[in-house]
Amino acid sequence: MNYELLPMISSPHELRSLSDAQLEQLTREIREALCEIVADRPAHFASNLGVVELCLALHLVFDFSKDRLIWDTGHQIYPHKLITGRFPEFRSIRRKGGLMGYPNPEESDYDLFVTGHAGASVSTVLGLKAGDDLLRPEEHRRSVAVIGDGALPSGVVFEAFNNAAGLKKDLLVILNDNKMGICPRVGGLAATLDKARVTPFYNGLKRDVAWLLNKVPLVGESTEKVLGQLKDAVKGFLHGGMLFEEMGFRYIGPVDGHDLGSLRQYLELVKDIRGPILLHVLTDKGHGFSPAMEDPVKFHAPSPFCRSEDAGIVFNKKGGAPAYTDVASESIYEAMSRDKRVCVLTAAMCEGNKLGKIRDDFPDRFFDTGICEGHAVAFAGGMAKAGARPIVDIYSTFLQRSFDHIFQEVSLQNLPVTFMLDRAGLSGPDGPTHHGAFDNTYMRVFPNIVVMAPGDERDMAPMLDFALNHDGPTSIRYPKATAEIVERPTAPIELGKSEVIRWGEDGTFVAFGSLLTTCLSAADRLAKDGLDIGVINARFLRPLDTEVILRAIQETGFVITVEESTLQGGFGSAVLEAANDAGVSVDNVRRLGLPDRFIEHGERHELLADLGLDVAGLMAAAHQAAARQAGPRV
Amino acid sequence: MNYELLPMISSPHELRSLSDAQLEQLTREIREALCEIVADRPAHFASNLGVVELCLALHLVFDFSKDRLIWDTGHQIYPHKLITGRFPEFRSIRRKGGLMGYPNPEESDYDLFVTGHAGASVSTVLGLKAGDDLLRPEEHRRSVAVIGDGALPSGVVFEAFNNAAGLKKDLLVILNDNKMGICPRVGGLAATLDKARVTPFYNGLKRDVAWLLNKVPLVGESTEKVLGQLKDAVKGFLHGGMLFEEMGFRYIGPVDGHDLGSLRQYLELVKDIRGPILLHVLTDKGHGFSPAMEDPVKFHAPSPFCRSEDAGIVFNKKGGAPAYTDVASESIYEAMSRDKRVCVLTAAMCEGNKLGKIRDDFPDRFFDTGICEGHAVAFAGGMAKAGARPIVDIYSTFLQRSFDHIFQEVSLQNLPVTFMLDRAGLSGPDGPTHHGAFDNTYMRVFPNIVVMAPGDERDMAPMLDFALNHDGPTSIRYPKATAEIVERPTAPIELGKSEVIRWGEDGTFVAFGSLLTTCLSAADRLAKDGLDIGVINARFLRPLDTEVILRAIQETGFVITVEESTLQGGFGSAVLEAANDAGVSVDNVRRLGLPDRFIEHGERHELLADLGLDVAGLMAAAHQAAARQAGPRV
Repeated sequence: MNYELLPMISSPHELRSLSDAQLEQLTREIREALCEIVADRPAHFASNLGVVELCLALHLVFDFSKDRLIWDTGHQIYPHKLITGRFPEFRSIRRKGGLMGYPNPEESDYDLFVTGHAGASVSTVLGLKAGDDLLRPEEHRRSVAVIGDGALPSGVVFEAFNNAAGLKKDLLVILNDNKMGICPRVGGLAATLDKARVTPFYNGLKRDVAWLLNKVPLVGESTEKVLGQLKDAVKGFLHGGMLFEEMGFRYIGPVDGHDLGSLRQYLELVKDIRGPILLHVLTDKGHGFSPAMEDPVKFHAPSPFCRSEDAGIVFNKKGGAPAYTDVASESIYEAMSRDKRVCVLTAAMCEGNKLGKIRDDFPDRFFDTGICEGHAVAFAGGMAKAGARPIVDIYSTFLQRSFDHIFQEVSLQNLPVTFMLDRAGLSGPDGPTHHGAFDNTYMRVFPNIVVMAPGDERDMAPMLDFALNHDGPTSIRYPKATAEIVERPTAPIELGKSEVIRWGEDGTFVAFGSLLTTCLSAADRLAKDGLDIGVINARFLRPLDTEVILRAIQETGFVITVEESTLQGGFGSAVLEAANDAGVSVDNVRRLGLPDRFIEHGERHELLADLGLDVAGLMAAAHQAAARQAGPRV
Repeated sequence: MNYELLPMISSPHELRSLSDAQLEQLTREIREALCEIVADRPAHFASNLGVVELCLALHLVFDFSKDRLIWDTGHQIYPHKLITGRFPEFRSIRRKGGLMGYPNPEESDYDLFVTGHAGASVSTVLGLKAGDDLLRPEEHRRSVAVIGDGALPSGVVFEAFNNAAGLKKDLLVILNDNKMGICPRVGGLAATLDKARVTPFYNGLKRDVAWLLNKVPLVGESTEKVLGQLKDAVKGFLHGGMLFEEMGFRYIGPVDGHDLGSLRQYLELVKDIRGPILLHVLTDKGHGFSPAMEDPVKFHAPSPFCRSEDAGIVFNKKGGAPAYTDVASESIYEAMSRDKRVCVLTAAMCEGNKLGKIRDDFPDRFFDTGICEGHAVAFAGGMAKAGARPIVDIYSTFLQRSFDHIFQEVSLQNLPVTFMLDRAGLSGPDGPTHHGAFDNTYMRVFPNIVVMAPGDERDMAPMLDFALNHDGPTSIRYPKATAEIVERPTAPIELGKSEVIRWGEDGTFVAFGSLLTTCLSAADRLAKDGLDIGVINARFLRPLDTEVILRAIQETGFVITVEESTLQGGFGSAVLEAANDAGVSVDNVRRLGLPDRFIEHGERHELLADLGLDVAGLMAAAHQAAARQAGPRV
């Protein structure tokens, strides 16, 4: 497609000189740019199609070179990027070295926070407002959060609502209601929002309201007055907004999120009202691209596809090999088939965790809490206390939200909850908010929890089986990667026992989880260089197999610990601690893992190579360790 | 006082044989037992006085040998303990080896979870209900959570409400509304609850409702029907409950929490209603003891006192030495006086953190978010982005709730937020939910954060000053203890620089924070044993002063790291990591700290002694290390 307008927009200020017809054309160009990207690579799609008009209306009405804007969660940031000077680099999005798929202050001053985890937008804009009020009250900077109905149930949102209402700060929260999170929404709030959709305010009174709005002067006190009258008039019908009114917000809506003109009017209307406001905007996830509107779940972050004139959308075939997520979900399915006590909980990640078949086949043992990781873990604690065997299936990075509930409701009670940490390690193009880079440390800090990682696909089912039969909390971490198989006579999973895949005189790789096969390949290659290197599949971080690992330290040339998690207090540190406690020297131990900085986005294999966690990197580390040992040992 | 009835109550079943007059007497005996305890030692008081009738009513109407009951937060558990067979040991409460001041399943099957952190009760009873429905549906076990208005704004409560409404589980949530958390409540919810207090349902219609209730058959469908009619009749007035109704709960109330007869009727009424119910109960914090009713903040957990006939309540004088909390709050006060960008946030711990004077003198820079630690941290991130210098002043253990926001809204953005972790280390009689036992590990896991601990009182103000001038996130941990002073020419605080208090040939204690003076005393005593032991005030965990610490490892007989936090991945591990990375042998390094288990309650000095973290323990460790080194070194 030829882009006529997008290349001209180097900042949102330029939007203001466009005619309505040009703005209409711009929405088409933005949607075309989104389609082009997503036809080329996996990227967030339907949510971006849904906010095109909202994004333009916000930038037309506010001036976010001064005013403050946070897009909650941030995967709907693409239109915002396109009109804030990043159209020229847009094709690089989600590629290593290219634009991030989330807001990023290093790319633009229009992005205030790197986001990715849901729910904090209301808190951060409230903080921005409080800071602006304190330091530059004369500038009257406005604060706006855009939050989807998927993120809304996240507890921190209500904490922020409560605080904002108490502080009576001027704050605009836009509820972008597309009836969807990544999966169809769940819970009591869903019913409330559904109710709002059918209120006369939206359907019956829409024309009348539009007429009224046209009469409304768009600034100052009289706006407030007219709005007050308007609200009183329809208050009886305003069921859907009562929740927010009760929380201390003024509720306005719902309004059509794809009518740019009316959106602008509403934003002008609410722009200078004092106190916290919630504007309820209805959008269609996938708007403007009918296949995505029809199946917004599939088109949340679809596989690359072609638009064929004959056949419609044709997805490019993915490689057939199953991912660890598939293996995990099959293992859970099998465990649920065998044992009626086994349940599975997800926090709105039914798709990502591939739990659809489980949801369909075991509806009474499948629980989607929505994006409420803290509650999910405490809920699992209650289930376990009642005798069930709950599996909490949440990405490593998102499980951080429930850290305190892992402490109090699970670890302190020593209850048999099993955590399955998907995306543990580098998650690829999503970048630093989505890498599971910290769980080796944070899962081992609390007493009682058994911390595990499968070395390959074959470890998964028996490891889960072990976990479900263990009388206490357990966790299993696995990467966002194609599942691999290590051909060997697989040893059974026993508490605190590692598996010696091979023993080597010259040194040993001790792998905790995902990089076991990399270690094996490196050992193979090192053999050709004349080094006899062993490989241990650690399986357990906690309790650690001190017997075997300390023997490797004492009896082989060196030990290199290998993990796909931060080196700060992780698996390697646990090895140092255990050896030191046992009086075993660790002079010949080296630790490989993620460094003490946030890792950018890129393909997992690219990032691993950069960090020296590929075969070449492991070989180099082994050669270095061997050289270091050669001195004193000879 | 002579207790007549309490000694007879070995289980709640025995309550049922008591007459109304006897129950009335029992409430007096329970309050007397509470007064006796609290006259003797610091303990939770006003909240317990407030729930006496509610506790009796619950145990009279439900059978919690089968039904499920969680008291949220748990500091109001005393009446429950008194009537569940623990009157004989009641005088041991909060003493080492005695009853816990919180629920404890090891004491009684009537306590289901050890609690202490607020807000998870609705999640856990929902989990219990889901587990019971799955595994023993025929038993129809009921699930009840009692949650105070102080804990209500905690985000996880709303996550649980949303999920419960979606699941349509039979669930009774009792809102114990005493208009107070530990401090007066704040936020939008407070206004909603206040509104509920003045609804006709409570004031005007009370007699009519009582009359109606007397006509209500107490089981089955017709109850639901009558209740439905009742509710329709008063719906127009039910402003205060709309919030909960909108969340998908049936709201009933508010009702008088000190009228035992009426409470029992209401509980009978709601007991068998299907779906999630919220019963709003109004109580007076401190009920039945007028000094506590008049000043519930002071009497939340008061100092021991005498009841004098002449002078009323006379508090026993506390020792005059200031605690670290005092020193911290003075340092914050001074920083706020100097720099208008400095703000302080607390999560309902204005009293505990001694911020009252700051709240009064700097009202526009003091923010109490309520028990909403996650929001507090994200809010601070927003403030810092706007140019303010927020201090987040939260207990070490409660800050766990905001782990993910420390990650995303602070560390990932590299924003200048300063965390002040009060109660870092063993907090004493509150026990395992209140010990700050994990922060050395969890604060160092994310990039960018500078992690500090003052060695004594004199380090505090300059350390805070350093933090507020550092261009990135910082944290400062300090214990619940009397502040101590190390007499020495104090070195200025410099990034990553420790302070060598004395150098010793034979070995070195490296103290991170609270146990510095213990190390100095031990070194003094060891000198008399002929050992020349140095002491380093580490000050920084991150970045670590590798130069000085590695030199101590290489040049002195041994190094013993000393910290009041878990040994799993903590300060000592950071030392092992740094030395190992630098190729320095750690054979002569030993780590002292909290072991890998939950630590019981007791006085801090008792617990430290048990764990070998007193002077004697440190001396023994030094002698052992010296003996170990003597072999190879000679």
